[in-house]
Amino acid sequence: MNEMSTRPWPAGDDDKFHEECGVFGVWNATDAAALAALGLHALQHRGQEAAGIVSLDEAGIFHSHKGQGLVGDNFGDAKVMASLRGRAALAHNRYATTGETALRNVQPLYADFAFGGFAVAHNGNLTNAHGLRRALVQRGCLFQSTTDSEVFIHLIAISLYSTVADRLIDALKQVQGAYSLVALHNGAMIGARDPLGVRPLVLGRLGGAPGEAEGGPGWVLASETCALDIVGAEFVRDVDPGEIVIVDDAGVRSIKPFGRQQSRFCVFEYIYFARPDSVVEGTPVYGTRKRIGAELARESGVPADVVVPVPDSGVPAAMGYAAEAGIPFELGIIRNHYVGRTFIEPTDQIRHLGVKLKHSANRPALEGKRVVLVDDSIVRGTTSRKIVEMVRAAGAREVHMRVSSPPTTHSCHYGIDTPERAKLMAAQHDLEGMARIIGVDSLAFISLDGLYRALGKPGRDMERPGFCDACFTGDYAIPLTDAMGNAADRQLSLLQVSQ
Amino acid sequence: MNEMSTRPWPAGDDDKFHEECGVFGVWNATDAAALAALGLHALQHRGQEAAGIVSLDEAGIFHSHKGQGLVGDNFGDAKVMASLRGRAALAHNRYATTGETALRNVQPLYADFAFGGFAVAHNGNLTNAHGLRRALVQRGCLFQSTTDSEVFIHLIAISLYSTVADRLIDALKQVQGAYSLVALHNGAMIGARDPLGVRPLVLGRLGGAPGEAEGGPGWVLASETCALDIVGAEFVRDVDPGEIVIVDDAGVRSIKPFGRQQSRFCVFEYIYFARPDSVVEGTPVYGTRKRIGAELARESGVPADVVVPVPDSGVPAAMGYAAEAGIPFELGIIRNHYVGRTFIEPTDQIRHLGVKLKHSANRPALEGKRVVLVDDSIVRGTTSRKIVEMVRAAGAREVHMRVSSPPTTHSCHYGIDTPERAKLMAAQHDLEGMARIIGVDSLAFISLDGLYRALGKPGRDMERPGFCDACFTGDYAIPLTDAMGNAADRQLSLLQVSQ
Amino acid sequence: MNEMSTRPWPAGDDDKFHEECGVFGVWNATDAAALAALGLHALQHRGQEAAGIVSLDEAGIFHSHKGQGLVGDNFGDAKVMASLRGRAALAHNRYATTGETALRNVQPLYADFAFGGFAVAHNGNLTNAHGLRRALVQRGCLFQSTTDSEVFIHLIAISLYSTVADRLIDALKQVQGAYSLVALHNGAMIGARDPLGVRPLVLGRLGGAPGEAEGGPGWVLASETCALDIVGAEFVRDVDPGEIVIVDDAGVRSIKPFGRQQSRFCVFEYIYFARPDSVVEGTPVYGTRKRIGAELARESGVPADVVVPVPDSGVPAAMGYAAEAGIPFELGIIRNHYVGRTFIEPTDQIRHLGVKLKHSANRPALEGKRVVLVDDSIVRGTTSRKIVEMVRAAGAREVHMRVSSPPTTHSCHYGIDTPERAKLMAAQHDLEGMARIIGVDSLAFISLDGLYRALGKPGRDMERPGFCDACFTGDYAIPLTDAMGNAADRQLSLLQVSQ
Amino acid sequence: MNEMSTRPWPAGDDDKFHEECGVFGVWNATDAAALAALGLHALQHRGQEAAGIVSLDEAGIFHSHKGQGLVGDNFGDAKVMASLRGRAALAHNRYATTGETALRNVQPLYADFAFGGFAVAHNGNLTNAHGLRRALVQRGCLFQSTTDSEVFIHLIAISLYSTVADRLIDALKQVQGAYSLVALHNGAMIGARDPLGVRPLVLGRLGGAPGEAEGGPGWVLASETCALDIVGAEFVRDVDPGEIVIVDDAGVRSIKPFGRQQSRFCVFEYIYFARPDSVVEGTPVYGTRKRIGAELARESGVPADVVVPVPDSGVPAAMGYAAEAGIPFELGIIRNHYVGRTFIEPTDQIRHLGVKLKHSANRPALEGKRVVLVDDSIVRGTTSRKIVEMVRAAGAREVHMRVSSPPTTHSCHYGIDTPERAKLMAAQHDLEGMARIIGVDSLAFISLDGLYRALGKPGRDMERPGFCDACFTGDYAIPLTDAMGNAADRQLSLLQVSQ
Repeated sequence: MNEMSTRPWPAGDDDKFHEECGVFGVWNATDAAALAALGLHALQHRGQEAAGIVSLDEAGIFHSHKGQGLVGDNFGDAKVMASLRGRAALAHNRYATTGETALRNVQPLYADFAFGGFAVAHNGNLTNAHGLRRALVQRGCLFQSTTDSEVFIHLIAISLYSTVADRLIDALKQVQGAYSLVALHNGAMIGARDPLGVRPLVLGRLGGAPGEAEGGPGWVLASETCALDIVGAEFVRDVDPGEIVIVDDAGVRSIKPFGRQQSRFCVFEYIYFARPDSVVEGTPVYGTRKRIGAELARESGVPADVVVPVPDSGVPAAMGYAAEAGIPFELGIIRNHYVGRTFIEPTDQIRHLGVKLKHSANRPALEGKRVVLVDDSIVRGTTSRKIVEMVRAAGAREVHMRVSSPPTTHSCHYGIDTPERAKLMAAQHDLEGMARIIGVDSLAFISLDGLYRALGKPGRDMERPGFCDACFTGDYAIPLTDAMGNAADRQLSLLQVSQ
Repeated sequence: MNEMSTRPWPAGDDDKFHEECGVFGVWNATDAAALAALGLHALQHRGQEAAGIVSLDEAGIFHSHKGQGLVGDNFGDAKVMASLRGRAALAHNRYATTGETALRNVQPLYADFAFGGFAVAHNGNLTNAHGLRRALVQRGCLFQSTTDSEVFIHLIAISLYSTVADRLIDALKQVQGAYSLVALHNGAMIGARDPLGVRPLVLGRLGGAPGEAEGGPGWVLASETCALDIVGAEFVRDVDPGEIVIVDDAGVRSIKPFGRQQSRFCVFEYIYFARPDSVVEGTPVYGTRKRIGAELARESGVPADVVVPVPDSGVPAAMGYAAEAGIPFELGIIRNHYVGRTFIEPTDQIRHLGVKLKHSANRPALEGKRVVLVDDSIVRGTTSRKIVEMVRAAGAREVHMRVSSPPTTHSCHYGIDTPERAKLMAAQHDLEGMARIIGVDSLAFISLDGLYRALGKPGRDMERPGFCDACFTGDYAIPLTDAMGNAADRQLSLLQVSQ
Repeated sequence: MNEMSTRPWPAGDDDKFHEECGVFGVWNATDAAALAALGLHALQHRGQEAAGIVSLDEAGIFHSHKGQGLVGDNFGDAKVMASLRGRAALAHNRYATTGETALRNVQPLYADFAFGGFAVAHNGNLTNAHGLRRALVQRGCLFQSTTDSEVFIHLIAISLYSTVADRLIDALKQVQGAYSLVALHNGAMIGARDPLGVRPLVLGRLGGAPGEAEGGPGWVLASETCALDIVGAEFVRDVDPGEIVIVDDAGVRSIKPFGRQQSRFCVFEYIYFARPDSVVEGTPVYGTRKRIGAELARESGVPADVVVPVPDSGVPAAMGYAAEAGIPFELGIIRNHYVGRTFIEPTDQIRHLGVKLKHSANRPALEGKRVVLVDDSIVRGTTSRKIVEMVRAAGAREVHMRVSSPPTTHSCHYGIDTPERAKLMAAQHDLEGMARIIGVDSLAFISLDGLYRALGKPGRDMERPGFCDACFTGDYAIPLTDAMGNAADRQLSLLQVSQ
Repeated sequence: MNEMSTRPWPAGDDDKFHEECGVFGVWNATDAAALAALGLHALQHRGQEAAGIVSLDEAGIFHSHKGQGLVGDNFGDAKVMASLRGRAALAHNRYATTGETALRNVQPLYADFAFGGFAVAHNGNLTNAHGLRRALVQRGCLFQSTTDSEVFIHLIAISLYSTVADRLIDALKQVQGAYSLVALHNGAMIGARDPLGVRPLVLGRLGGAPGEAEGGPGWVLASETCALDIVGAEFVRDVDPGEIVIVDDAGVRSIKPFGRQQSRFCVFEYIYFARPDSVVEGTPVYGTRKRIGAELARESGVPADVVVPVPDSGVPAAMGYAAEAGIPFELGIIRNHYVGRTFIEPTDQIRHLGVKLKHSANRPALEGKRVVLVDDSIVRGTTSRKIVEMVRAAGAREVHMRVSSPPTTHSCHYGIDTPERAKLMAAQHDLEGMARIIGVDSLAFISLDGLYRALGKPGRDMERPGFCDACFTGDYAIPLTDAMGNAADRQLSLLQVSQ
């Protein structure tokens, strides 16, 4: 899901990539909404700004609760949980943009169709949503949100097909872009991935407690395996690219309306997004990150006294690097996990202390040392510069930055909140320039081939790379229809709500 | 506006009629939203459960704020008011039903059409909304609220006409029921009353400060004249039954697409709903109520020591009665105006104290007296019974109830929240039975002819009564299409939102 | 209770007197806290800014809940009410000043003494509180609030007497000023009035449900009889000036430690503060107000077409005036009771609309008429001026103001929030000047003797007036010790709390 | 600071020790309150339940804001920060018990003394507070909180000395227990540590921006050096055991009224409480923890495939263990840092999933492995048992628990929230029993001598250990006066507040 925007590319508010969403669905389970809340909690890293759950009860009534903030802040109330009745539920975590649009854009989206209620949760981004929306509004469709995901709803509503599955397929055939979605109607839970399988989606099965089966097993669809683990569901398989799975009381059926295409799974899920204990597309994330670190050490080793990760995301790569390089791994930077929702409005005097709210230097581990800093990526470079400054202020003699991704030179159009190209440091500067900007003695990124080697390939196959790596290569496998269009057409709503 | 309901007739939570809404619109005024808030405040008696304002700024952007509760509780915040930019605004007070549906049903409703933004506020109730909604959903329209008013929005969205006014007329021609509505789009403010003019709507003109004109005068549309007074607007005229007025920078235009029909203005506005200082359809409310009281004294005089109103609504009729009968008018019942939103969850021991939260007996004015109690209406009879009990407990020797409306024997389908017939005391009991139930020594209602006499007619003209008095006569001038249909078809939304 | 202040005299934020408090205590009743909430509700007119209840359970544990705003807003929650366990409770309504001090100053005050818990609620104002506080702080006592009432607590804490009653008497003997207080400890409820009986306090007895006795009757102490009525308590008697009543399971005992003094009950309770249905010091309020109106008509009659009250407080006097003068009583001003806690931050353009939030002119009742306006008092004159302006704008031909109190020339030091003398219109201008300022054709106040006649006396006895009328006469019967002192000494707390 | 309790020993709500507080004071700095908020943020690990800041402005007025929850949740509001005016501030983080007492117990405490305002923040626990409180109440002192810290306030208030410093020393001489406190009055900031220096306190100096000096340097007192780092203060020195430092515009003065005693600094600060990047009592925490891990490996090595920390606190010890043992260090357990304030009310079905909200197993790193799990301590054993279970469920072949503290056999009375002895696993079971309970193949704790060796000593000197290790040894260096007394005397307040 992505908020459609008049800005060419939506921009995050700090110097990191942001995954836009986590999705979770459960079918045929006691306490379905509680399982959904747990699943969302395990997927919290995919979106911390808003969360929503829709449940479906035995009488065909849907129950919804959504809120800003963490899962645990919104679904801890016993009354709320009790209101989310039923044995099926759908849930969504959002990395939201700020401001008035927030509430009406929180998913799952819901609609009363002629054939009954329907809810959908979407991870990804559609690349022809603006054009579709324009055409739908022209036809008399009234949009309530400014998310691209709402076009699914209207396309389904106006489809001339009769079954829900056929209407959904009809809708999917009209959209372009990346999507992993889970939908719920009175009769089935449906999962779908776009034909290239850019965003992840896995299927799990509930055996015993807590979601024990009544008249058959329970089923879970989720963005990552860590959400299966927390609810005690057994991993069954990844949903295939272009596959639609229909889960109902008869079991799981699969439809593949798009034929066979080569997968282009998002390689950044391995580098940064996915939780280290998840297994994505058959490969454990944690081990992959350590292997990338080891590749990095082989490619760009440098004499040093300590290898220090930028926590938490840089830790596994730093461990791999340290082991390969034979240099001690040290926690030279401590992360403060207690950062609240808001913090001090900084005055001029304290503004430059900002970055230290999250990270602090562990001086005794850095003082007088030659330090290899390992981070997962550099986007704008501002955070890196501040961290390097902090490490030097703590007495490091040399600072060598090693990055476990190739240089990020292009924006993502498939669901990751990346700044526009003009703000990507690697799109504007060569290696030497970047090193100077962030203030390091040396700088190296993993090579594209090195990254693919860590993923078990001999290198990047230019014809059939097997992953989406557009942010490093500009090789956009799905057409960027809206991006080619007229930015002036992108005004989506004339309403601004004061909440 | 009315929440469409699966219940045959929506039922209020206490023993009074409830007007469902007040509407207010302003065009071409400095501080338009502030004027709208003041106008809503003056119309607060028409709905206390929720309030909303939508403004329209010079750039064509709409700004919205809605909330539960009183106007003063929602529009006192300087930030909120500052966000409601522009020289035009639309506002709505709601008497809402409780529960989850509240927030999405708060008006004004807004939609992004292909031709731009559009907001509408509606007072009244449509009698064929269920059928229209079913057809629209069948066509692929997605409803967001459960109010009947939303059908206006969709009918406009799918209209094949090109101008906004034509689309609105197209929509109005398809609906049945009572409506006074004000709409706003980038270019004009539009007011409309249903062909029989059941609900009120007046036009006013802003001269000097505070809403002084820039390049022409400002204009106001409101449910009652008291809302013109508070913003310093001059009363121009009532909007006619079936008239559509279009207010734009060129001035006020009038369209009458429904031809000429006999007016059936709601007579209960005179008896209870309208504020006493309003002038409705050319006649001051306060004086009318005193005349009804005087008629009542002539029709059903009884020897007594004091005439006591049930405050506040019974006061003018009691004054008229007392003057005509030559019996002293006394404040024998004191009303406590500080009743908060919620109050004590009554235990069994204190439940019977409930009614006393609003009223208390002024014992010295009642003790040993023969009391004529004057009230405006009796719906279920439960409140009346408790008040009579309280008056007797304070020492009244005799209690004679005189009611300034005829017996309420039928439910309203045109925008007033009335209980179903089975709960209307006058539909179930004769005069004697009612007197026994509420515990009075005598009971009398104004006669239908007496009521019309107080309104300046010789009596009720059975052919052309000139007012809607269906709640007393069952003479429903607008077809009750939905009410004839199948109650099972009235399920509007399968979603329940926990807020 | 009064917030001690560095300002010479505390000043209200609008142009009315404000009673500072209502007190209510109940002993030996089922649902004691619920009865206390009802009692507070009936006393809501004595203070709308904050409310608090402390209950005492069988185990000797006290339970407390306090909040800003109306009783109904704070004591409607079932969990809150359930937490207020026990068969005894103490409650307090406050007319509070704004700002940070609010919360810590909300009563009842509570303290853990060596002999157990103790709670107290106070209506009135101490005139030597600053000096006592200074001495107590010098001794090492730590004050938590800035209310004068807290000196009671510390004086009791450090008293060398052993019983609670003796400690309380010891404390009372050291304070000067006006107080009606109710206290609660494990063993008894205690009521006390200052030796001159300036503020009211009544004793009631609970018979049957809802606060039915278990092992003896229940007892109530309250500021006014209307609070007895709402809980179904029978009026027993006023507590005498200087009397201490001790209510425990053995019944009611009386102590009169101050000897016999002449009563100086606050005459303004009759004019404005008390609820019209209360009987204070044996005399019904409603009838007294009507008699004052009749006196006023006799003293200062003027040819006119209508007598119009400034609602709600001016209504009974206007009725008395109208009846005596034989001029019709009309509701020429309508009061809007829906004024929320806050309202629009007025811009310059709408600031002058301010007063109309509460009152609106009923034009048809005023147009072309010679109007006698009846109000209870004039303080600063600003509100009166705006109301007269509004009445004239509605078309009144003449406006004659008649006031049911003598000119307010002095500030109250005994518990009423009055502006300093410099802001009292009657202290600065003669009758003619006042008439000019408020813009009336004629102005008259009731005479002092006329007021006493309406109270059943032959006139004011200069030696033994029998009432406190210091605000009209400057005859302060209780020494104004603090007011004589150095204003610089009145800084009470160096702490400002941001809530 | 500790909430005084009727329970023999306060008990935490989960299976970890809890440090009760962090304190921070700043003198002579621009944006003093903002620095205090940053300092609190750096000390957030010492208390997450409530936070408070009191500032002192140039006019001698104190400004206070306190709230439940994280620093960032309470001090992010610009209005709040703007209200905390002045160049000096005092701040406190609290690990609070739940329930009604929370708000009145949040520090800093403040009092208006005869000599002016006074605020104090306290880390530690007094062991004779009950007795002192009883005596003070007997004398007429009224307590507002139920914290032991309030006795400081009253002892100062009633002291017969004249200077603030002398009154504070007078008070300190009467208390027993552990305390590091910072106080603020108009004239000076004062820091004090108890004679044995059980709890930490450091002094720092502000040079340039952001808290640049005006007429002299600024000064900081804080629980740990990490709070100096975040505000850019230079570490000056630890405050000595028994030392009182007085910081005013003349600089820093030192008073040592207790003579010279042997330090008994809390050894658990090294093991668990202090942040790894802090330097406490001259020794870096991070290095110490790694040395403890290495000692543990030497003492209790076991053949294994991986060393896995229980994150985050077990990480440095696990790194030390792994390096010493030559076994790979792996992140076999992932910690979820997004745990909100509340979470799902667990139904029976999902209750056993509870522990997984914080930790999840990284299956690929554990499957088929012999695992050494390293944790910092075991209190009740319940968390350990669940973690071991989770690790086994993820496929671990063997699980060996190694603990970087000796067995916790005694409760702490000096400021750490420990369960009573009966709930300490090590107080009730031998090593074998413990291993069976938590379900491991082997279990070992660091030895007492090993711990001292890691701290640079040859072992524990039984005569002069140099640290407080009472929780491992029962060697309580400060008398436990209250604990010896009668539990029935420990009722502190009879008031329960519903908030």
